[in-house]
Amino acid sequence: MCRWMAWFGQPVLMEELLFKTQHGLVDQSLHSRMGAETTNGDGIGVGWYGDGDGPAVYRNVSPAWADPNLRELAAHVESPLFLSHVRAAIGSPVQQTNCHPFRHGRWLFVHNGFVDGFAAMRRELMLTLDAELFAAVHGSTDTEVIFHMALSEGLEQDPIGALERVVGRIEDVAAAHGIADAMQGSFGISDGDHLWAVRYSTAGKSRSLFASNDIDAIKRLHPDNERLRIAHEGDRVIVSEPFADLSGAWTEIPEATAVTVHRGGAMELADFRPAHMPAAVA
Amino acid sequence: MCRWMAWFGQPVLMEELLFKTQHGLVDQSLHSRMGAETTNGDGIGVGWYGDGDGPAVYRNVSPAWADPNLRELAAHVESPLFLSHVRAAIGSPVQQTNCHPFRHGRWLFVHNGFVDGFAAMRRELMLTLDAELFAAVHGSTDTEVIFHMALSEGLEQDPIGALERVVGRIEDVAAAHGIADAMQGSFGISDGDHLWAVRYSTAGKSRSLFASNDIDAIKRLHPDNERLRIAHEGDRVIVSEPFADLSGAWTEIPEATAVTVHRGGAMELADFRPAHMPAAVA
Amino acid sequence: MCRWMAWFGQPVLMEELLFKTQHGLVDQSLHSRMGAETTNGDGIGVGWYGDGDGPAVYRNVSPAWADPNLRELAAHVESPLFLSHVRAAIGSPVQQTNCHPFRHGRWLFVHNGFVDGFAAMRRELMLTLDAELFAAVHGSTDTEVIFHMALSEGLEQDPIGALERVVGRIEDVAAAHGIADAMQGSFGISDGDHLWAVRYSTAGKSRSLFASNDIDAIKRLHPDNERLRIAHEGDRVIVSEPFADLSGAWTEIPEATAVTVHRGGAMELADFRPAHMPAAVA
Amino acid sequence: MCRWMAWFGQPVLMEELLFKTQHGLVDQSLHSRMGAETTNGDGIGVGWYGDGDGPAVYRNVSPAWADPNLRELAAHVESPLFLSHVRAAIGSPVQQTNCHPFRHGRWLFVHNGFVDGFAAMRRELMLTLDAELFAAVHGSTDTEVIFHMALSEGLEQDPIGALERVVGRIEDVAAAHGIADAMQGSFGISDGDHLWAVRYSTAGKSRSLFASNDIDAIKRLHPDNERLRIAHEGDRVIVSEPFADLSGAWTEIPEATAVTVHRGGAMELADFRPAHMPAAVA
Repeated sequence: MCRWMAWFGQPVLMEELLFKTQHGLVDQSLHSRMGAETTNGDGIGVGWYGDGDGPAVYRNVSPAWADPNLRELAAHVESPLFLSHVRAAIGSPVQQTNCHPFRHGRWLFVHNGFVDGFAAMRRELMLTLDAELFAAVHGSTDTEVIFHMALSEGLEQDPIGALERVVGRIEDVAAAHGIADAMQGSFGISDGDHLWAVRYSTAGKSRSLFASNDIDAIKRLHPDNERLRIAHEGDRVIVSEPFADLSGAWTEIPEATAVTVHRGGAMELADFRPAHMPAAVA
Repeated sequence: MCRWMAWFGQPVLMEELLFKTQHGLVDQSLHSRMGAETTNGDGIGVGWYGDGDGPAVYRNVSPAWADPNLRELAAHVESPLFLSHVRAAIGSPVQQTNCHPFRHGRWLFVHNGFVDGFAAMRRELMLTLDAELFAAVHGSTDTEVIFHMALSEGLEQDPIGALERVVGRIEDVAAAHGIADAMQGSFGISDGDHLWAVRYSTAGKSRSLFASNDIDAIKRLHPDNERLRIAHEGDRVIVSEPFADLSGAWTEIPEATAVTVHRGGAMELADFRPAHMPAAVA
Repeated sequence: MCRWMAWFGQPVLMEELLFKTQHGLVDQSLHSRMGAETTNGDGIGVGWYGDGDGPAVYRNVSPAWADPNLRELAAHVESPLFLSHVRAAIGSPVQQTNCHPFRHGRWLFVHNGFVDGFAAMRRELMLTLDAELFAAVHGSTDTEVIFHMALSEGLEQDPIGALERVVGRIEDVAAAHGIADAMQGSFGISDGDHLWAVRYSTAGKSRSLFASNDIDAIKRLHPDNERLRIAHEGDRVIVSEPFADLSGAWTEIPEATAVTVHRGGAMELADFRPAHMPAAVA
Repeated sequence: MCRWMAWFGQPVLMEELLFKTQHGLVDQSLHSRMGAETTNGDGIGVGWYGDGDGPAVYRNVSPAWADPNLRELAAHVESPLFLSHVRAAIGSPVQQTNCHPFRHGRWLFVHNGFVDGFAAMRRELMLTLDAELFAAVHGSTDTEVIFHMALSEGLEQDPIGALERVVGRIEDVAAAHGIADAMQGSFGISDGDHLWAVRYSTAGKSRSLFASNDIDAIKRLHPDNERLRIAHEGDRVIVSEPFADLSGAWTEIPEATAVTVHRGGAMELADFRPAHMPAAVA
């Protein structure tokens, strides 16, 4: 049910993370270990900050492992900040507009998980969008709706707060539909200056999410690892599941937690608390 | 801005109409003569009634002229009733879920034209859908919304009446947005027992639409035409533009007209009158 | 490394075998149990005999599990004889012309396996094709070359004999290149009147291959199975791996064996013996 | 029958040439004025030199006008040297491996035109390839074969000389097949340090080809043109047909001419003379 990764650090060719890393994201598209599904073959996407205005987004319906254009881009585009996503569709069509990342202005958004009972709630949730954001929804995933709800709730001013309001609203609407555990997932968000990640599920059993530890500490643990030589202090990776089995390299993000990564690698964790509407008085 | 055709008659291999006819629909995808655009290369679709439950729908983002699977299907599937459509996108993505025909149960729906100012009205129009039909909209075209509005308005009981109510509503909403000539287009509709076609535009300058004349009359005019030998009495074709320049073969459908074709080829024309909401009393 | 199936019997909607059967071919595209790879997501193909001239071939680069057009075709096309294939690419691009079945005139051809060291031998093997068959090779798989070699060797007169000559030649060329175990695979072949299947590998460790047993015997073993009710005497299925765990339903084809299935279900097994060229006298 | 362009100059976002220029290449994909076909909708490709090892190649079967990924790349990748191509297929399938540019090591290759009677000669021409280059041909175009023939003939040491030998050989083989006017086309070639272009056809009626004139001269002619402000001395563009109708901006490359563009914009023209094999002595 999808895997994703985000890089924030020195500019690197994207292939370093997508293809050359042991058990990197493209390998996870075929052989995920911690995902709800082993195979994440229903489309690929990568969004990056670099040349040109705002982030670029490449999305394709092909499985990541079989897309020569993805390999080309990864080998020839350098970026200090990018998010990539491999999809395992659950119900909605395999089409470009259902692939992650989603973009609005300078913002990128990826999601691993789902809204339970989404079909029944889709109309009610989309009614909360204003007309312009409504018209910008071109696909049929729950994620695209969540993203545009968050934009309506002020994502561009306060991404975590906006997402807390959106998740609270979804849980409220779901409760009214008799759906108990509405939200499942992890989220990755960026505006090019910060990277945010959230791990949350209504049931408290969220999809896995990990952050890389400080490079200096990892290097001390693995002084002979060749690939770590190119890693710089301040590089930070957020992943659905760890790339390789490098002891001491990864910290699991706790349940119901929002992570903020600053340029330079500083990382803060905070509780993620869905904001529910006060119950209407009878 | 799209071309379409519909066949209702004896069972034929679909290639007879799509590929083997002079200036057939696939040729029109590359060299349309009467369309708003010469090229209709943004996807193809064909829906047919035959074996299995309900109509089959094949849709592909490839241009019709370059799709080997379309050629295969056309050469190996026989049907007494099918609709096919080649798309020229205007704004919305080239994706399978934006290709025509659209289907619901036994119903097929194609459209050539557009709703002017659709992006601004999309939210307001989709609000008129019930939750189940709302969730069934997977793409982002105006046509898919019109079809689901018509289903909400009783298309399955009264297709032309439902479409008159939908077009009236769209014109009302458009007027409130200051949009003068909201609706442009021709429509093709079937449930497997009848074929309906509508030519209508708010401005009274609709996309072209033609119906084939009675085969016997055409045969008398062209006694030496080889291909007409296989045509049977009761075969009827509706097309955005005539296939070949066969004098006496085609009748232009008048402006603001709804056509009903019965099994056996009988055809009735009636006025198409959008049903507007009574203005609210102040 | 690919899975395939063939049906020869009463006319059925193809979905009965592809989608509705437990652990049918589409399920095997995602969860193969006996294949070299669990995932066979690098394209799909189905070739069937029915309406129109010769067999139809539908091929798509999308994984079988994610292709709505495959589902449509399967649900709306009936055929008494069809072959279907899901691909796991090993090196060659994921493109339509690399998907199986391959076709020439009335003939269809599918393959599960590979020619070891094919890249080094491709030129030498293709030189054995005559100019017309050479020009008909549009993709880059070993299978397409094997098929066209077999056509050059008289496949249309003697399919098994031709394949024995081709496999012998490939083993000879491979030996000259110092490649020990050149050929691996199972093959499915039809001309619309017969169905042939071959299980063979140079090393004697071939990909799995099974034939369904006589329906009457299977029905006696499973008198309460609903789906078997529709099975008729004379229906025969050949599969890379059994669909469901139905005891007594399947017979494994032995190593180095050619199977001929006649209309009506009669099946003959014979040794498959590659025909090697006599060593040149010094 | 295809259009292409090449840029060699200051690093620019590729969209400046592909999308923002009046009648740029993407517009030519839909509305070519000088091509054999108006529509060049059978795939797109762009190869560029920049970050990473060697040139990157992006190729897609979608028409250029409908490919959101092309637009993204063009808006976010800067390059001092790139070639782009829009395809109008003539016979061979629309697949990625038939899209231009073709690449080998540091070399890129594009072609507008065709080899007349190619199917009949394909085997004979491919026999001239060594086994390794033979195995590298993954598609079925004449262009890919020409490119690999040129590599066999020393393209990497002497690109124009190698192409003269290849064209000569093709004309010789064609003559033996009774084909009079075998070669038609223009070619674009680069190794990242130089850009070469050739205009040649056996019949002396070649596809159009133009080079941009010195920027300073163009600027003097059009002092108020906004877009020319960003143009630098030393920028050079080679195009199948001029972008916009800017008087004095373009020079037509004469028939049977090879162009060499050096870094800094210097450009040399020379005769292109196919090298024929001496007739065998009886």
